[in-house]
Amino acid sequence: MTDPFVVVGGDAAGMSAASKAKREDPSREVIVFERGEWVSYAACGMPYYVKGTVEELDDLVAVTAEEFREERDVDLRTGREVVGIDTDAKTVTVEGEAGEAIERSYGDLLIGTGASAIEPPFDGLDLEGVFTIHDMDEADAIDRFVGEREPESAAVVGGGYIGVEMAEALDARGLDVSMYEMLPRTLQPFGEETARTVEDHLRDQGVDLRLETAVRGFSGDGSVERVTYEEGGGTASAGADLVIVGVGVAPNTDLAEDAGIELGPTGAIATDDYGRTFDATDGSTVQHVYAAGDCAEATNVVTGEPDHVPLALTANRAGRAIGATVGGDPTRTGGTAGTAIVKAFELGAARTGVIDEERAREAGFDPVSVTIDAPTRPHYYPGATELTVTLVGDAASERVIGASVVGRDGVKRIDAVATAIQGELTVEELQNADLAYAPPFSPVWDPIVTAAKVLGGSMEDEIR
Amino acid sequence: MTDPFVVVGGDAAGMSAASKAKREDPSREVIVFERGEWVSYAACGMPYYVKGTVEELDDLVAVTAEEFREERDVDLRTGREVVGIDTDAKTVTVEGEAGEAIERSYGDLLIGTGASAIEPPFDGLDLEGVFTIHDMDEADAIDRFVGEREPESAAVVGGGYIGVEMAEALDARGLDVSMYEMLPRTLQPFGEETARTVEDHLRDQGVDLRLETAVRGFSGDGSVERVTYEEGGGTASAGADLVIVGVGVAPNTDLAEDAGIELGPTGAIATDDYGRTFDATDGSTVQHVYAAGDCAEATNVVTGEPDHVPLALTANRAGRAIGATVGGDPTRTGGTAGTAIVKAFELGAARTGVIDEERAREAGFDPVSVTIDAPTRPHYYPGATELTVTLVGDAASERVIGASVVGRDGVKRIDAVATAIQGELTVEELQNADLAYAPPFSPVWDPIVTAAKVLGGSMEDEIR
Repeated sequence: MTDPFVVVGGDAAGMSAASKAKREDPSREVIVFERGEWVSYAACGMPYYVKGTVEELDDLVAVTAEEFREERDVDLRTGREVVGIDTDAKTVTVEGEAGEAIERSYGDLLIGTGASAIEPPFDGLDLEGVFTIHDMDEADAIDRFVGEREPESAAVVGGGYIGVEMAEALDARGLDVSMYEMLPRTLQPFGEETARTVEDHLRDQGVDLRLETAVRGFSGDGSVERVTYEEGGGTASAGADLVIVGVGVAPNTDLAEDAGIELGPTGAIATDDYGRTFDATDGSTVQHVYAAGDCAEATNVVTGEPDHVPLALTANRAGRAIGATVGGDPTRTGGTAGTAIVKAFELGAARTGVIDEERAREAGFDPVSVTIDAPTRPHYYPGATELTVTLVGDAASERVIGASVVGRDGVKRIDAVATAIQGELTVEELQNADLAYAPPFSPVWDPIVTAAKVLGGSMEDEIR
Repeated sequence: MTDPFVVVGGDAAGMSAASKAKREDPSREVIVFERGEWVSYAACGMPYYVKGTVEELDDLVAVTAEEFREERDVDLRTGREVVGIDTDAKTVTVEGEAGEAIERSYGDLLIGTGASAIEPPFDGLDLEGVFTIHDMDEADAIDRFVGEREPESAAVVGGGYIGVEMAEALDARGLDVSMYEMLPRTLQPFGEETARTVEDHLRDQGVDLRLETAVRGFSGDGSVERVTYEEGGGTASAGADLVIVGVGVAPNTDLAEDAGIELGPTGAIATDDYGRTFDATDGSTVQHVYAAGDCAEATNVVTGEPDHVPLALTANRAGRAIGATVGGDPTRTGGTAGTAIVKAFELGAARTGVIDEERAREAGFDPVSVTIDAPTRPHYYPGATELTVTLVGDAASERVIGASVVGRDGVKRIDAVATAIQGELTVEELQNADLAYAPPFSPVWDPIVTAAKVLGGSMEDEIR
């Protein structure tokens, strides 16, 4: 009998892989070890639980532990942590509730250990009312804190998409929200034009936005009362009854590193096209050991380089592909374009590919970028709103390499660019894409096509 | 001095070409002859004028005649019909208001004569209250008829997108609407699944939908009162105080044909990649004579064959490209994927590429098609609606060749498939496209990606 397919970590990548492997080969034993209790939950939904849009935390669970066990025949073991991997003996060491360790053989192994919220060396991180949003229990704790302690003000530290979503959520709960961002702008990966539009909107919505402001820590008597931050040469402070620290996530790689598995240039676990890992010593493929999800790298489809994009679709897709592969149908995990979309109060913002010009140059491109404002419907049709589209091309290959859009409506239009990037379309090809037009849905020239037209013109001018 | 760029027809293709040529080369004389009075108007907006969504007919004019003359320096002559072209002498014969004919030399010529609504040999077409919707005056006449005569019932003949849009418009004006369609289904180019969904919805909205019902004509005393249609071996009739005939359009090709210019297999004017026309006798390129818009063919990007897609974006894009070409910057007109989108009461429906399996086989494809229902947002996020996606691939090349979507929201997702078609993506590539996910906008697996996954599975099964 084949040894089982063992999965470490019961979230998007792990459970997708387990389910797919079982569907491909129902006779194969599939065991998932999850150190927590929650499995297969929509982390991206947590801000909407805090906001109140989602009523029950359980609603965020895509497939319950019971369904995995009963309907999908996956041997799911929660509260069990894998603490060691022996890639020669092909075993994992698993710690149970009582701390006892057992060994299990695997035929194939998937490392899906995810990522953790970064906790900077802030003072007062252990005060009551200071949260990082890294799992469902934390979302629950924030929700209860707001309900029970009735804080009046909140400080969100970090202007990434989690920070922006939490600002909206806490504003909706009636708190006065401040946002602290060390850098000169929020939503870094979305590019300057989109970030500025979002920032103006956050301020319009009453968020006290403090850019280029480095937080030092938090103070209070048991519970957080003030945020201390750098100002001038010294420090200043402002009140906050609740603090959310959302400064990014780091891949959970200890288990892999200890097992001698190679990390890539981003610090996440290096993988090949099929999600297989490499030996840190000699760079050879570690047979039967895969990694996927927030702990692993994926290939950026624009640059062809390893990238670390801890987002749900990448995790689900790679997990599913690895499940198919170990189930007998070798399937590439697919790359990532780094596509992301975020709601910021009344605005939507989305991005894909490479937008930052410096990063584009590092990847060997000669980036040309344009930003246009275009209506989402003809002027005469009610409900037209303005969409700001930034489109980036490479003057050398003439390829589309990135885009960012922001507006009140229609930001899923980013998908046309994400598809163009997947297919390595040139700017001229995107310009000629036959996008759908009728007055209730779009102007004749869709904003994406308009941006491609303008970018095409800029690139021609550059060549002349 | 170069002879002028002469444009025949002052709508989308003609005015785009005129404006672009003038921008490229401001010293070039550009003359547009338009036999009517309206120029550059959004024909697609006419149903929304009848509905009342658009208040003034003038709102549908993108750029006014005065703006063309004053701001764009285009010599626009309305009420002037071109009645002859001599491609050897490079002249056009133009009829003025008094019927006098003058000759004008051209350096380059664009035929943008558009299309006309087909008028089948119905009895009673000349009764009051019987309309085809082919231009702005007709839209105005329908609006006035509804306002002044207060008809209680309307019959829409033809279940294409104009029929569907007019049904919605007249229903909104308080009329009881019947729709007659000779074929077994409406919205032919949208594929069966989408058409059936729209049909169910039309019935839910109170439209008396009569499929496989051939209209014979109309009767009444001066003004229309009844529609006569075939039933069993004979005829039957039903009341209607207003009739809209919308059974399709035919390209206006008489002028081109008389000038010895070749028509293509679709019956529209044949063109090459730059919009140039051919000599009907020997098939050679007619130098300096272009055709674009609803009177001309465009290359279908899926089949590579000439196609006749009388839609606004194709006309605008080809016109603009020809304007650039005659202005000194040779530009391909681009192809068409036949992308279309239509609002049907509360539903949206969209299509792109080749959906019909018979047509796909004729074009040399081995079509495999799937239809899925998928939510537009995660189950836990409010406002999720169901999108039905039909996706068609070619088993031989594994390319995506067509799609149709229908639902209450999110039908612009067709653009991702239109872009995939433009870039000749395979089903696997579309499946791996990194489409945007966050709970307010999409489930993790966007419906388009889900359809691609399912289609990929079907194609694998077929190959096995």
